[in-house]
Amino acid sequence: MRLLATWRADLIAGAIVAVLLIPQSLAYAMLAGLPPQVGLYASLLPLLAYAALGSSPVLGLGPVAVLALMIAQALGALPAGVSATEGALVLAAEVGLLLATAAVLRLDALSSLLSVPALRGFENGATLMIAAGQLPVLLGSAAAGFTLPALVSSAPDGGLGLASAVWGGAAVALLLLSRRAGPRLLSRLAPLLLLVAAMLLSALTPAARGVAQVGALPSLAMPLGLPLLDAALWLQLLPAAALVALMGFVSSLAVSESLAQRRGEKLLPAAEMRGLAAANLVASVSGGMPVAGSFSRSILLHEAGSRSRLSLVFVAVFMALAMLLLAEPLAYLPKPVLAAVIVVAVLGGFSLRPYRDAWRYAREEGLLMVAVTAAVLLWSIAAALAIGVVGSIALLIQRTARPHVARIGRVPGTQHYRNLERYAVECRPEVVGLRVDESLVFTNARGLTDAVLGHVRAHRKQVGPPQRVLMLMAPVNHIDVSGLTALQELHAALAAEGLRLEFSEVKGPVLDKLKAVGWLERHDVSLYLSHHEGIQAGEHVLRPSLADHDAPGQL
Amino acid sequence: MRLLATWRADLIAGAIVAVLLIPQSLAYAMLAGLPPQVGLYASLLPLLAYAALGSSPVLGLGPVAVLALMIAQALGALPAGVSATEGALVLAAEVGLLLATAAVLRLDALSSLLSVPALRGFENGATLMIAAGQLPVLLGSAAAGFTLPALVSSAPDGGLGLASAVWGGAAVALLLLSRRAGPRLLSRLAPLLLLVAAMLLSALTPAARGVAQVGALPSLAMPLGLPLLDAALWLQLLPAAALVALMGFVSSLAVSESLAQRRGEKLLPAAEMRGLAAANLVASVSGGMPVAGSFSRSILLHEAGSRSRLSLVFVAVFMALAMLLLAEPLAYLPKPVLAAVIVVAVLGGFSLRPYRDAWRYAREEGLLMVAVTAAVLLWSIAAALAIGVVGSIALLIQRTARPHVARIGRVPGTQHYRNLERYAVECRPEVVGLRVDESLVFTNARGLTDAVLGHVRAHRKQVGPPQRVLMLMAPVNHIDVSGLTALQELHAALAAEGLRLEFSEVKGPVLDKLKAVGWLERHDVSLYLSHHEGIQAGEHVLRPSLADHDAPGQL
Repeated sequence: MRLLATWRADLIAGAIVAVLLIPQSLAYAMLAGLPPQVGLYASLLPLLAYAALGSSPVLGLGPVAVLALMIAQALGALPAGVSATEGALVLAAEVGLLLATAAVLRLDALSSLLSVPALRGFENGATLMIAAGQLPVLLGSAAAGFTLPALVSSAPDGGLGLASAVWGGAAVALLLLSRRAGPRLLSRLAPLLLLVAAMLLSALTPAARGVAQVGALPSLAMPLGLPLLDAALWLQLLPAAALVALMGFVSSLAVSESLAQRRGEKLLPAAEMRGLAAANLVASVSGGMPVAGSFSRSILLHEAGSRSRLSLVFVAVFMALAMLLLAEPLAYLPKPVLAAVIVVAVLGGFSLRPYRDAWRYAREEGLLMVAVTAAVLLWSIAAALAIGVVGSIALLIQRTARPHVARIGRVPGTQHYRNLERYAVECRPEVVGLRVDESLVFTNARGLTDAVLGHVRAHRKQVGPPQRVLMLMAPVNHIDVSGLTALQELHAALAAEGLRLEFSEVKGPVLDKLKAVGWLERHDVSLYLSHHEGIQAGEHVLRPSLADHDAPGQL
Repeated sequence: MRLLATWRADLIAGAIVAVLLIPQSLAYAMLAGLPPQVGLYASLLPLLAYAALGSSPVLGLGPVAVLALMIAQALGALPAGVSATEGALVLAAEVGLLLATAAVLRLDALSSLLSVPALRGFENGATLMIAAGQLPVLLGSAAAGFTLPALVSSAPDGGLGLASAVWGGAAVALLLLSRRAGPRLLSRLAPLLLLVAAMLLSALTPAARGVAQVGALPSLAMPLGLPLLDAALWLQLLPAAALVALMGFVSSLAVSESLAQRRGEKLLPAAEMRGLAAANLVASVSGGMPVAGSFSRSILLHEAGSRSRLSLVFVAVFMALAMLLLAEPLAYLPKPVLAAVIVVAVLGGFSLRPYRDAWRYAREEGLLMVAVTAAVLLWSIAAALAIGVVGSIALLIQRTARPHVARIGRVPGTQHYRNLERYAVECRPEVVGLRVDESLVFTNARGLTDAVLGHVRAHRKQVGPPQRVLMLMAPVNHIDVSGLTALQELHAALAAEGLRLEFSEVKGPVLDKLKAVGWLERHDVSLYLSHHEGIQAGEHVLRPSLADHDAPGQL
């Protein structure tokens, strides 16, 4: 009974998502510069492959808008004699192989290289570029381009088609109306209803005169077979495939992870990688194009009550039915209507809020987000992703570049020590209490001695002549070889001024490494379990032996 | 009187260093593939420029071995019609301009990109390669190459010269003997004495037959003038110049900083950059080659009692004298003797200890060091530096890639909380105490929710059903936009399980940013000044208002 209930739920969810996927698959194939039926092919067998190997019960796999734009750019300069369809198959094969390799080598952590600002900036830029690129199709213009400058410069020669503009404008208006005014069910059915109505109208009346139509399709029989095995072509498409694979994996993971957390489920990134790899490999031998998880369709699968990956199997069944039914009328579909479906779908996901939020929280990350978006619009996909990754790493390094060392004192009446620039605290003259607020790594190690000596000077002036420097090491999560070298220099510099160096609250893993090389004994550095204990310890107090801190379960 | 004492001390230090600089400058020029007098020119006016603008009183400026190797590689493929001497001047001009630009843009922090393992690995690799490259000269072979494979493959056709081998072997033996056996003064004078003796012997006896000599020099008048202004040549040498500038600055800074700390002086990295820029620009208009601070000569300046940069002025005066005296006899100097000076000088600085130390402290950094050294020997300077920089960054990112979240409990009888996997601590069932051991940034943010939920499950099983999760945030030095997004997801995931999220010991700068966007209020997250306070706070205790933590000077 329970199994039956799951099946029923998945069947319903599958049907609902198929209704959205049919128009989207046609539209995104067109967006990628491919014949629309490629979108249908990519929405069939690849879904079964993911259902077999993936892990999320709600990943709306298939063609997605951002990847479609990347595919269009990748296929822009194919050698003579290679069709876009053939190029797309090679691209899908490479994406699948790259993801499979990454899965075998457990490289799924690589996806963390795309920070939130880089990812959101990229997606928003791609969204705007997709919408801008569909504008000429909507208006019956021949203008085209993968960047705004290219698009604008081709606009004067593009001309305008009144009939196209009327079809396109009407379609956009109807879609927006169904979103705003209608009940939820209608707004979901709207794109499919619109496509069917447009095909009927265009086939049965003369109203479609002068409007570009999809045109007769060669055949709607799915072409099974290996992609072109041309080494030069594979090499040419490899860089683009790497970007598509990275973007496809990261965006799929982002949506499936956030849904898994909402659903209280556990997601396996490695399984997601395998599932995506399999889906793309299957797409490459069944006439498809690179696929990934769509944000809108995943949300819909979740809301429609999908319980297992079986829902994707049902989606595929419905897509097969649609292929049979659509074979004939698809030829009549006016292109401006498809463009309207794309524009309304992608702009629904666009928002300026992430920029505002990032800017308010951290200026430099807000700027990075704007830079990535601008790079998509004005330069290229690859440049935008490179700016995002390199920029994120640069900001991370810059942030750890100054070793923040705070002078701390005791909050009166407690065993608690805080920054004396922020709190009214007590200090003792004979000991300089410092808190090292960053891991000691190569990016900041060089400045450590200077920072500490500065605090010692200030202490001598304000509190009195110190005998020792006690560093609270709790925030230090790691000390690398450069950091160790810096500690060595610090020890020597303090010794030159007749000061002892002491540590408190050193974390376990950090302590283990220092002990492994005998650093503490060699430099005769005292250790205290708590900073309070270290501050209290006068000369009359015996220094606790290292062994005391060693055994787990002891003080 | 005091001024006079300083002058006297600087005069003596200058004389001692000049004795070492004369043979080194000749040898390193030859190592760079340049006529030996270029080394003398590079040791004259550039020293005055650094003395005017630099900041360290003990930087042994002039030609250095590692840069000489880099220069030789850069000048290996000059276009026809351009001599190596002309190329070296262009290279020096570019190094000077790049350093000047970096100084103006305050890019001296860029130097932190070279971690200690990368720097030491590179220097050791260059040292070995220099020694290997001089071996054929010592042995009278014509073999040559900038990498070990190139050197080895040219060896069979190189032949051997018995006379050269005798000269070279004798010179090496004498130099080593003076180091091991003789008093300190002798070992310092040895290279110069050896050169003078070799020139005399070679000029006055037939013993030098069959041995390559430096040969008659065109003129020892310093050629003043602008370097070749050829755009294509400048562009070709620019990448090498960038590497030379980076390496020159970082190695100079490393030695001058460590000496400044030893001497209790303050070093200004920006002034060092300006001084090096000026020195290289002056070198480029006075017949020199790119210069930097030498480790051995800087130590010697310090030990010889240099008190101010005036000592460098005296070095320059002695170099001018040497130029006049050496003009004639330099032609007779046998090349194997110069090679012996190089080999003994650079191998004196070689040690396997840094590899062993790094390996014992952190395997992956030890491996990186070996990889950088191997890349210098087997591949190229540029590849080695790239591996060093990229590898250091990759290790840094990998280290922060897993968010280490520890479950903590109270050390009995204290207000202190430690990892329950390492210490015997007390936990209360209603609250899960966690310590976030890393800044929350894009490289680790994605794993936060999973890690916390895992601890919550373990707590539920081992201690009891919790009502809230209290995260000790003291080790969190920074939260970027990706980290904030992760906290948002965590908050939602905990809320879905009916758990409250609370923070303790949030650092001032982190708190400021969270408050600036109203994050804490919006998510109703309680804050505690100390973790102990937060654990004690039951439902009956009023949550402290945010304002309490706000004002400096209050609890």
